[in-house]
Amino acid sequence: MDLVNHRFQLAARPVGLPKAGDWSYGEEAVREPGEGEVLVKVLYISLDPAMRGWIREGRSYIPPVEIGEVMRALAAGEVIASNHPAVAVGDKVTGLFGVQEYTVVHGDGVLKVDTGLAPLPVYLGTLGMPGMTAYFGLLDIGKPSEGDTVVVSGAAGAVGTVVGQIAKIKGCRVVGIAGGEAKCRYVIDELGFDAAIDYKSEDVATALQKDCPEGIDVYFDNVGGEILDAALAQLARNARVIVCGAISQYNATGVMQGPSNYLSLLINHASMTGFVVTDYLSRYPEGARDLGQWVAEGKVKSREDIAVGLESFPETLLRLFSGENVGKLVLQVASG
Amino acid sequence: MDLVNHRFQLAARPVGLPKAGDWSYGEEAVREPGEGEVLVKVLYISLDPAMRGWIREGRSYIPPVEIGEVMRALAAGEVIASNHPAVAVGDKVTGLFGVQEYTVVHGDGVLKVDTGLAPLPVYLGTLGMPGMTAYFGLLDIGKPSEGDTVVVSGAAGAVGTVVGQIAKIKGCRVVGIAGGEAKCRYVIDELGFDAAIDYKSEDVATALQKDCPEGIDVYFDNVGGEILDAALAQLARNARVIVCGAISQYNATGVMQGPSNYLSLLINHASMTGFVVTDYLSRYPEGARDLGQWVAEGKVKSREDIAVGLESFPETLLRLFSGENVGKLVLQVASG
Repeated sequence: MDLVNHRFQLAARPVGLPKAGDWSYGEEAVREPGEGEVLVKVLYISLDPAMRGWIREGRSYIPPVEIGEVMRALAAGEVIASNHPAVAVGDKVTGLFGVQEYTVVHGDGVLKVDTGLAPLPVYLGTLGMPGMTAYFGLLDIGKPSEGDTVVVSGAAGAVGTVVGQIAKIKGCRVVGIAGGEAKCRYVIDELGFDAAIDYKSEDVATALQKDCPEGIDVYFDNVGGEILDAALAQLARNARVIVCGAISQYNATGVMQGPSNYLSLLINHASMTGFVVTDYLSRYPEGARDLGQWVAEGKVKSREDIAVGLESFPETLLRLFSGENVGKLVLQVASG
Repeated sequence: MDLVNHRFQLAARPVGLPKAGDWSYGEEAVREPGEGEVLVKVLYISLDPAMRGWIREGRSYIPPVEIGEVMRALAAGEVIASNHPAVAVGDKVTGLFGVQEYTVVHGDGVLKVDTGLAPLPVYLGTLGMPGMTAYFGLLDIGKPSEGDTVVVSGAAGAVGTVVGQIAKIKGCRVVGIAGGEAKCRYVIDELGFDAAIDYKSEDVATALQKDCPEGIDVYFDNVGGEILDAALAQLARNARVIVCGAISQYNATGVMQGPSNYLSLLINHASMTGFVVTDYLSRYPEGARDLGQWVAEGKVKSREDIAVGLESFPETLLRLFSGENVGKLVLQVASG
């Protein structure tokens, strides 16, 4: 085939924000797929806050990426060779393909997707891991009831946009927290949130008092830090806090900042529960069915923020942590 | 009647540990009970960590004690005059009687207790508020199953001793965390805990790894601070953390220390839930029935640490925060 694969490997464990020098960019010949394997041409790579955790040493929900390994990433692509009976050349698929142009993986490890229902990048966002994260975190842990006040941080991101829209479908009042006026306008005007708080220009604690006068019933936290503390201070009785992430803390070099207002849980008979999406692996079909239907009906809208060019991976990744992306951040590697 | 009542009023809001000067000690004539009221001679006053919260300003589960008010306290005593049809002179009762020798309260606000089943001070401990706290916190929030590993901090205190013994009744492996060898020996030798960690001489994180090799399924937290962080680091999947108190932080003058390891909830699909015992007011009869039976059968043992003399209230209270008491700390005001 004489295909050449370009890829990013982890060169060093980052301290703080990942620097260009923490990656090595290189090339190799693409090998032939063996028995049961398929060769995928990667078209879109998903950039997710979780990637910062994957390159950190220590016990977590999956082993860390080792130095010298191709950087782990969810991605979407097209099958260009197959030795697997259930996968055909031309199939559009998603999987853990890594930050590279081509991958050879076992056919059991790819998921075929229907680009008739939604464009391929949507399967990395609303109909992919972030959508599942929103779905199971909100519904299984948050258990929102009609009339509840639901607050979500990272509201304009891949997970937050879906959380808020599902909460609206369930009859809740929804308040988003996001950085900047454009994101706040987006979640209200395009996604139908009831209110939005711009943490860059507003005092979040004061704004939550105003926007949630009867307290917060469900808080979906993607950010941790001071925003988590502000939300804890405004909990309603029997509130549920969903710990999905802590993007404000992922690049911290000192001690992680714990929520100093956690005794609000005690006063309010409230709970704080964490999860990772793979906890719900066996129930993905349920999430895929509902989200697929809501997308088809136009009840859940999806936006992708698409950067172009594999080489831009190191700097594009940083946009997640500076809060520049609106919707799902995706890196386009090739055109389909 | 010509009775004189001595009492402690709150004189100033303490900064850090309450000082002698934060209280004023004085006397007044005891008034006659009015219609429906009873006059109680206080015999035992309950000293509880929650008292530190009651004298702090700000929103909590009950209004704070105001400057000039008699200090709030649960207490036990004997009825010496009654204008209430359901309460008789000679009845032994508990209630919110305050840090004083006599109180006049409405008869509906006292609870008659049976000193044939257990001595009066036990109704301030194992058969009182701390026992109910242990019962509902462990069983309703912790939901321990047979074979679970249950860890409790403040293990030799009024709540911790009951938590550990109920967990043993439910077939769990129980590890206590307490300060000093005497307390550790007490919970193992007298109460039947499986292991105990002396936080004054051991590294709690290391000890928890040794004593809970398969992780902690239920952690009942009375202390907060570094011990909470150590427990979070050792959670098992689907663990339940019960936030009952944070005695290590109650006298903090700076910012409350939040649990910096809270993302362990995320990795382990674990939850952290707070409560105060009055959340379960309507279910007290259930707790009283079970605890009464366990005490009668000798399955739950009770120890009271009894200091003598109302005047010693300010310094006796501090023993809670220096961790000197073993079992329920009670102040004896008069002999019954």
